[in-house]
Amino acid sequence: MNPRLAGIAPSLIRAINARKRPGDIDLGLGEPTLRPDVAPFEAAMEVVRREGLPYTPNAGLLELREAIARQHAFPGMDAAANVCVTVGSEEALYLAIKAVLDPARDEVLIVEPCYLAYPKLCALEGIRHRSVAFDADDGFRPSAARVLEALGPDTRMIIINTPCNPTGRAWPAAELRALADGLAERADPVYVLSDEVYRELYYTADRPASIADVHSHALVAGSLSKSNALTGLRLGWLIGGEKLIADAIKVHQLVNTAASTFSNHVALEIFRRPESLAAHRPLYERQRALLLESLERHGVAHAPVEGAFYCFVRLPPALVADSLAAAGRLLEEHRVVTVPGIAFGAAGEGWLRLSWVAAPDALTTGIERIAAFFAANP
Amino acid sequence: MNPRLAGIAPSLIRAINARKRPGDIDLGLGEPTLRPDVAPFEAAMEVVRREGLPYTPNAGLLELREAIARQHAFPGMDAAANVCVTVGSEEALYLAIKAVLDPARDEVLIVEPCYLAYPKLCALEGIRHRSVAFDADDGFRPSAARVLEALGPDTRMIIINTPCNPTGRAWPAAELRALADGLAERADPVYVLSDEVYRELYYTADRPASIADVHSHALVAGSLSKSNALTGLRLGWLIGGEKLIADAIKVHQLVNTAASTFSNHVALEIFRRPESLAAHRPLYERQRALLLESLERHGVAHAPVEGAFYCFVRLPPALVADSLAAAGRLLEEHRVVTVPGIAFGAAGEGWLRLSWVAAPDALTTGIERIAAFFAANP
Repeated sequence: MNPRLAGIAPSLIRAINARKRPGDIDLGLGEPTLRPDVAPFEAAMEVVRREGLPYTPNAGLLELREAIARQHAFPGMDAAANVCVTVGSEEALYLAIKAVLDPARDEVLIVEPCYLAYPKLCALEGIRHRSVAFDADDGFRPSAARVLEALGPDTRMIIINTPCNPTGRAWPAAELRALADGLAERADPVYVLSDEVYRELYYTADRPASIADVHSHALVAGSLSKSNALTGLRLGWLIGGEKLIADAIKVHQLVNTAASTFSNHVALEIFRRPESLAAHRPLYERQRALLLESLERHGVAHAPVEGAFYCFVRLPPALVADSLAAAGRLLEEHRVVTVPGIAFGAAGEGWLRLSWVAAPDALTTGIERIAAFFAANP
Repeated sequence: MNPRLAGIAPSLIRAINARKRPGDIDLGLGEPTLRPDVAPFEAAMEVVRREGLPYTPNAGLLELREAIARQHAFPGMDAAANVCVTVGSEEALYLAIKAVLDPARDEVLIVEPCYLAYPKLCALEGIRHRSVAFDADDGFRPSAARVLEALGPDTRMIIINTPCNPTGRAWPAAELRALADGLAERADPVYVLSDEVYRELYYTADRPASIADVHSHALVAGSLSKSNALTGLRLGWLIGGEKLIADAIKVHQLVNTAASTFSNHVALEIFRRPESLAAHRPLYERQRALLLESLERHGVAHAPVEGAFYCFVRLPPALVADSLAAAGRLLEEHRVVTVPGIAFGAAGEGWLRLSWVAAPDALTTGIERIAAFFAANP
């Protein structure tokens, strides 16, 4: 056995989900409950009838790569050569970490609270990693200063996530600019791997900025999983400088050859009507309004919800020391599934993540029960 | 950049394909030219209409894993827990190498001539590897004795491929038994990773045996790519002992979460009618008869074609020293694409790989041109 595997802990989210019983209210979900548009699948079926299902090129259909590059329009990254089509954004993260870093020398700095695949992927690849936490008392607002202060001499990559799972926060453009400016002062390039899988789900006036707008050493991971309720399509992308993407494609080719040709065609159809990327946003906006109204009514403290479909809720003093125990009691005593903040790193302790993609009734009932649990444990 | 990437050579097959011009006869293809059955796609569409496209469990749909296990029926590996559904057999190979081996200690022994992803995957993972060649004068007949003689003290995995790309040879059951018996004498387990992606395409009286029939430390990689002309489905599997598969799933989950849900449903539909796995075999049998008749007529020497859709052809003395140059001249002077044997390791030097999935006219014309080229360079 690869000895690195022994050190990678099983998922806490999975452990919580395994305890769920029929009838429980599930606010622990990590994927949309909306149904995807079937029209792009019909278009892909026509391709299968006409052409069968041969391999795409390793990096994906050329027209799809071009469309992804055009849609994002990051400066200096707007051609097909800047895009590798991947098996979901998960593979994009893996490729970036695997292809860009030298395990013998480089260190990764991970911004917490975060999706725990980041440190696990580093561990899988034998790459040193440290974390830096945003300020819980500031609702985990992204801060360039915090990240820049935490850089070490060997830091070669920073991993950020905007909009963020689990906090719902998005990096302000000014903070991204400050981060890029700070990194520009370093002698060697520091790559910023930005997980933007929730890019289309934002509730700020404008779409949140990307580090790739201001930093040439950016790598951006994305997918159709959340925007189009297509987690099972396993179709994502990595965007970056041409040389970095060429290296990523070399790994991609060896580890799985290419993403599904059918999924490539579904995605191409979606990008031909880019407005469909935003089609679900109004539904999420309505659901978010319901969430916020309900939390407000019950006086539940939480981080601002700027994007994604999560809300990070603060535990009351009696529960703050152990989010795993709190989530366990909430499930056993009140039959509501949530995810303990500790599942997103030490910085998340004292918080719970709610998903708000459940049916409206379930969402408001779930929040009522959470509020009652908090009130009984002040 | 990951320094291991610099040492991985680009594909010779790709280099040859890049020189192909319109009108050239392509006997270099690595995928079927047949059209897949559309019915399983229609069934998967019904699922999308009904349920959308959520994630499958990381290891794939339970019913599909059960069907794959049942279909192969390897002793001690016949339950869902013995199967991980992967993004093609390529990912299955990757998972086996990544999850099972300790890069600090273990060595891999690769049987040549072979698909060069095997040594490249080892190089990507920083795992020591050596090769052992079968006897060209015996038509590359698989030999347990050759493999057992080549074992070193640190050999922890042997990689075999049956039926074989590029040689078309299949391991005889007696040789697999001898290999298993030899390995049983070692103090520590030696895993045999068997690439069986051509398992359904055999031209022997019975289906070729698998090492998993006789060796408990076997890992078998397979897919629907070749049997069902579905290379673009990216749906494969790794079969093995429950503990090994659990480790492989851990890696799989981190590198791409899961294979496409749509592809899982297409595959499930195919396994519900397992006779469809063999549906293309009669077409290949007819095409193989045409190939052999044509080679015989022109006196072209080749290894026995027991499986897959390749034929390994021996170069005449004037060309034997440089298969890359021979393939280049065949392309430039006679407009036939083939793959030089050296693309499959040093053991393949002096040979050319022909694919015989082209249209019948193209196949016979291609062989005529090859024979004329050989006759002019005896």
